[in-house]
Amino acid sequence: MSVSAVTPVGKFELEARDDAARAGLLHLAHGQVHTPAFMPVGTQGTVKAISPEELGALGAEMVLANAYHLYLRPGHELVRRLGGLHDFMGWHRPILTDSGGYQVFSLAKINKVTDEGVWFQSHIDGSRHFITPELVMEIEHALAADVIMAFDECPPGRAERQTAQRAVVRTHGWLERSVRRFDELSEGDGTQVLLPVLQGATFPDLRLESLRRAGELREWSGFGIGGLSVGEPKDLMYEVLADLSPELPQDGVRYLMGVGYPTDLLEAVRLGYDIFDCVAPTRNGRNGTAFTSAGPVNVKVAAWRDDGSQMEEGCGCWSCARYSRAYVRHLFVAGELLGLRVLSIHNLYFLTDLMRQARSAIQDGRFNRWVQEWLARYAGGEVGDH
Amino acid sequence: MSVSAVTPVGKFELEARDDAARAGLLHLAHGQVHTPAFMPVGTQGTVKAISPEELGALGAEMVLANAYHLYLRPGHELVRRLGGLHDFMGWHRPILTDSGGYQVFSLAKINKVTDEGVWFQSHIDGSRHFITPELVMEIEHALAADVIMAFDECPPGRAERQTAQRAVVRTHGWLERSVRRFDELSEGDGTQVLLPVLQGATFPDLRLESLRRAGELREWSGFGIGGLSVGEPKDLMYEVLADLSPELPQDGVRYLMGVGYPTDLLEAVRLGYDIFDCVAPTRNGRNGTAFTSAGPVNVKVAAWRDDGSQMEEGCGCWSCARYSRAYVRHLFVAGELLGLRVLSIHNLYFLTDLMRQARSAIQDGRFNRWVQEWLARYAGGEVGDH
Repeated sequence: MSVSAVTPVGKFELEARDDAARAGLLHLAHGQVHTPAFMPVGTQGTVKAISPEELGALGAEMVLANAYHLYLRPGHELVRRLGGLHDFMGWHRPILTDSGGYQVFSLAKINKVTDEGVWFQSHIDGSRHFITPELVMEIEHALAADVIMAFDECPPGRAERQTAQRAVVRTHGWLERSVRRFDELSEGDGTQVLLPVLQGATFPDLRLESLRRAGELREWSGFGIGGLSVGEPKDLMYEVLADLSPELPQDGVRYLMGVGYPTDLLEAVRLGYDIFDCVAPTRNGRNGTAFTSAGPVNVKVAAWRDDGSQMEEGCGCWSCARYSRAYVRHLFVAGELLGLRVLSIHNLYFLTDLMRQARSAIQDGRFNRWVQEWLARYAGGEVGDH
Repeated sequence: MSVSAVTPVGKFELEARDDAARAGLLHLAHGQVHTPAFMPVGTQGTVKAISPEELGALGAEMVLANAYHLYLRPGHELVRRLGGLHDFMGWHRPILTDSGGYQVFSLAKINKVTDEGVWFQSHIDGSRHFITPELVMEIEHALAADVIMAFDECPPGRAERQTAQRAVVRTHGWLERSVRRFDELSEGDGTQVLLPVLQGATFPDLRLESLRRAGELREWSGFGIGGLSVGEPKDLMYEVLADLSPELPQDGVRYLMGVGYPTDLLEAVRLGYDIFDCVAPTRNGRNGTAFTSAGPVNVKVAAWRDDGSQMEEGCGCWSCARYSRAYVRHLFVAGELLGLRVLSIHNLYFLTDLMRQARSAIQDGRFNRWVQEWLARYAGGEVGDH
């Protein structure tokens, strides 16, 4: 616990603004998070192929884990008995747990959704489960992450208005119940921060309604923006983010869930969002795609065969300090496990460093110029991935 | 280069003996190797799932790589252009390269074996290759390992006498040619050490013939013992090792190739052998088997589900310092990549530490008692694996 008496857990300090873009500091039970920040995804209590030391060394300050996955396996009560998720996975800085809303609606076979909760079948073994907002609070309390998300209904990105509206209303009802259960479980100990998840698909007025309803409930340390980057056109996502941003309080953290390709991150930061997560850097890493400032590169490309230079010139990551393009290519061509680690670390460093650069540019009041220059070097080629 | 002027590369210093068991120090261009020593196997220029830093931290002093694999992919000339295998893979301590004899005869489709060389088809893409003792020297010279093995014919462990005898004769002819090519390539620069590989299957007199022939050629820094642990009964392997040991010079290192299960290692050390390699610790690690002093354990065992203790009590490895049995089990049950690393490191540490303990026991003159006590705790259950 590295929190001083004067900065309560959950406080978001806004340090600098540059137009809508923000640089801030989020105070949590296991430390501070400098924003903008990208969170590596450790779905099952491990960021795939990477150790906690490596995460720390690449500059990650907070990782995400999934309540849904850990509830199913190994079970949240087991994690609690073993001292909570920090001890279990050996990561002693901040953790955020996703509530499982997105996972229940994307991975599991849904049997029935009611206002009471969701009957679903496990994607692992088909076992039947009934999940409620209260159960999600119990799971996340047992896991003991620093930031926990309320259970939400996450409709598809191109949902009809009626579906989106129903999700807003239902998500709000669930939020009221989450708050009650959270307060019972935490007994005001102040170690965990609960954030609501705003829904409303691509309808700006529904997004505002979701915000208004949540805002009336209590004061929050911030807001999660859910239900984006789930199949809707990018322009619509940016539009929603632009409309919502001025309505969000400045003194709360803004977590845009599931976004993590470089250009999306920069646009979201420009629009005033602070923290992000996505499997893109690790999944791309395992698939042999390296993030570089000139765009993504398939590491098996023939040009790398004999290339003794770094994956990215001047890159400060563990992988680039040790390995040439030729060696990384060899690892992937030969199907070697070390390649998965080397590229996952590189890609996570790339995004973490991108957010560090963004933060510095915001603090210096040169964010827009910096983004323009950065994008001019960067040659698209991205594909969708949550 | 950490070799002093007074200890030439390839010198094996015998430091202590306890009956036949030996503790020694092998001086090589990239450092010293304390024996007995287990070498992690980095077939394709990477020890599967493990970084060079982790290898160093677990106590490995020399790793093995395979000339056969690296010749096929990425190609030895490419490795040479990129500064040799040490730079390519980022491991700056000693490396030993196997000549590919074992691989050609076990992995590849053999088309024709003559005294001149071997026509085979690549196990990767079926491409045809003709490998000769001279080519193997060129490959190993390009890779630039500290210790390089001569090309040998490796018959099956249960080979008939006639087959075994032919392999001894042919291997010796190849050794004569290897020496000539090695001398041409090295120009006496003294950075690489060439070792012959003794054959003779399970026939003690053929083993002695193989040794006698090699010994007549020149003075060697040591001998590789090939063609064991390749399907023959264990008793026969031990018999051969016992018969051969007194005939081997005390001032050379003795490398028993492809042996690496704990009980085999201890018996081989007892019989006077010094260095070893085997995929067993890493392959078992990837398959979810942990080496422990009470025998191998399948980490998915139910008893580990809720067990917050270390895999091995008192173990000094990176993995045991960080992770509980419950977490390791979770990683394997959930199919997480970190599990492969965690268990490979643990198993390699286990064997490396076993050899350290053996060395210390030899130096103290208590080796036989120590082995007896160790084996009394250790509960078999091993399976064959090269």
